[in-house]
Amino acid sequence: MTTTQVLSVALGERSYPICIGTGLLSQGHALLPVIHAGQTVVIVTNETVGPLYLERAKGLFQNGTVVTHELADGEQWKTPAAALSIIDTALENGAARDSLFVALGGGVVGDITGFAAAAFMRGVSFLQIPTTLLAQVDSSVGGKTGVNHARGKNLIGAFHQPKAVLIDIDTLNTLQEREYAAGLAEVIKYGAIADPAFFEWLEANIGALRERETEALTHAIYRSCELKALIVAEDEREQGRRALLNFGHTFGHAIEACTNYNTWLHGEAVALGMIMAARMSALPQEDIERLVRLLDAAGLPTAAVDVSATDLLAAMLHDKKVAQGRVRLILLRSLGDAFVTGDYDDAHLQRVLEQ
Amino acid sequence: MTTTQVLSVALGERSYPICIGTGLLSQGHALLPVIHAGQTVVIVTNETVGPLYLERAKGLFQNGTVVTHELADGEQWKTPAAALSIIDTALENGAARDSLFVALGGGVVGDITGFAAAAFMRGVSFLQIPTTLLAQVDSSVGGKTGVNHARGKNLIGAFHQPKAVLIDIDTLNTLQEREYAAGLAEVIKYGAIADPAFFEWLEANIGALRERETEALTHAIYRSCELKALIVAEDEREQGRRALLNFGHTFGHAIEACTNYNTWLHGEAVALGMIMAARMSALPQEDIERLVRLLDAAGLPTAAVDVSATDLLAAMLHDKKVAQGRVRLILLRSLGDAFVTGDYDDAHLQRVLEQ
Repeated sequence: MTTTQVLSVALGERSYPICIGTGLLSQGHALLPVIHAGQTVVIVTNETVGPLYLERAKGLFQNGTVVTHELADGEQWKTPAAALSIIDTALENGAARDSLFVALGGGVVGDITGFAAAAFMRGVSFLQIPTTLLAQVDSSVGGKTGVNHARGKNLIGAFHQPKAVLIDIDTLNTLQEREYAAGLAEVIKYGAIADPAFFEWLEANIGALRERETEALTHAIYRSCELKALIVAEDEREQGRRALLNFGHTFGHAIEACTNYNTWLHGEAVALGMIMAARMSALPQEDIERLVRLLDAAGLPTAAVDVSATDLLAAMLHDKKVAQGRVRLILLRSLGDAFVTGDYDDAHLQRVLEQ
Repeated sequence: MTTTQVLSVALGERSYPICIGTGLLSQGHALLPVIHAGQTVVIVTNETVGPLYLERAKGLFQNGTVVTHELADGEQWKTPAAALSIIDTALENGAARDSLFVALGGGVVGDITGFAAAAFMRGVSFLQIPTTLLAQVDSSVGGKTGVNHARGKNLIGAFHQPKAVLIDIDTLNTLQEREYAAGLAEVIKYGAIADPAFFEWLEANIGALRERETEALTHAIYRSCELKALIVAEDEREQGRRALLNFGHTFGHAIEACTNYNTWLHGEAVALGMIMAARMSALPQEDIERLVRLLDAAGLPTAAVDVSATDLLAAMLHDKKVAQGRVRLILLRSLGDAFVTGDYDDAHLQRVLEQ
């Protein structure tokens, strides 16, 4: 028996459903956008995910004229050229304003495809079918799309909400252990910034999650998406509260940049970044240790990285969230309650970076 | 004595003022966005407009850190690469989320700069300072931005509203006769689609307009922007009524495409396209003649072009406004009253294209 859970991202006329369950790629879901006969559907995937799930995904759009586009796998290919290549394929196959773009893959595929959909004819519909845990709980929800620039990640992009997000938990069966753990980092983040009870639930169920047990996994994904959806609905374009979602990310991006993006997965860098952010917060030592323990139990790195404090600080200053020269940080009041601030002690920051 | 006229484009939180007057580049205007000390202002212009007006434009932003970027002049340079080159310059000079992009030039500069502003860090503020009549009455107002693709114009872009539009009529003094007349085509369009009284005023004042008399010009630009602003406010993302602004453009784009964009200026092609659209409409012969006479008096072409009907029809089918294979046309009920329809006689279309 399978149950599909559906939650809604409430954004007025841009609202959309997130469908979470097993077997969804085979059976689809009633909430999927309706494709009219002959409508062009451009499914974008990559060389890793395509062989596994493309045929099943095509089955969801039998009414339409399906066109497929395969990207190379990897963050280094998340470029303006990749987004343009999708648009080339779309135009070569007669795509028009009423076409639907579909992102089938992880966060990189989703971000590139979403940006291509945003820019193609000033915006066409798109659908997210995330196949990694990270994409399912984070990048597929909220409408942030984009590609990288030589000077930094996601510096070129758009806010463009999908028409729906289809999360088939079965696709996680083919996900490598390390990638899976990296996704858990974002799940833990939601507990840490917005929901102490969820944080406790994660502490109690991290074993089941590591075993990818369907029930625990469904709950973790549902609650993560729900927390993200609530925050996004309040602040779609990141003028305020949405910045909380970047907990651990300012430090994490700096770690990634200083290691040339070839040492840590994004989720791993975020795990390390969350520990640094927790250490910058006025938290009891015991709470910092709870966070470290949970990340460790999730299979994530918790140990210091071999990067100089000077390099980290320089990389943080390059982050696009820098307002008027001062790095703003997301810190914790307690586990489950985050806030944004530019008011912190620079010497304290220096000590944390050196640690 | 100079009077600045200000009208507002009413788009809720994205509302913005259009300031129209003489000497504005020298004196600025109280409604310009306030630049805080050190804020990066990226002024984009081209090799033709830069030498004439860049120094004056820089004077408007003395508080900020001004960076300039010069594009090549011409529609053939309206490419994704041009938009990326602006972003490169912005990043090389420390631009961030709070930076302001400024478009100083004609429609091409405005469209490219607007798209760069839309995509840079998922959207930064931008200001339009249009220096051609066409840009002043059309492309600078309404938030359509974009670049061309080998397969067609404006196929890559975004809806991104400026913070303000600064129209300094003095800049028209350096505009070539043919470019100026091309701008008048869009002015005449507003009369034809939405305001019979304005159409009559244009018939009475076309002589003064050709002489670029300040009073007539100010009124023509103000009323054109006002009519466009009203339509855009009703339908920002072109789901319905905004399509009326494309009167003459479906035919015009086809004419441009079939002549490799090297025979007619955009406004000239639109003039020819409006005559074709009028001939497709159920209009009295006398009204068609009034339109032709007015366009002719404005210095615009009215004679048939040397392009085959077959090529024109093929080009029209490539237009991005094609919904499900049927070209939708903007036709006139009468001079001053347009509507969109897919319900027309194909044989009639064939005859008009052959004419």
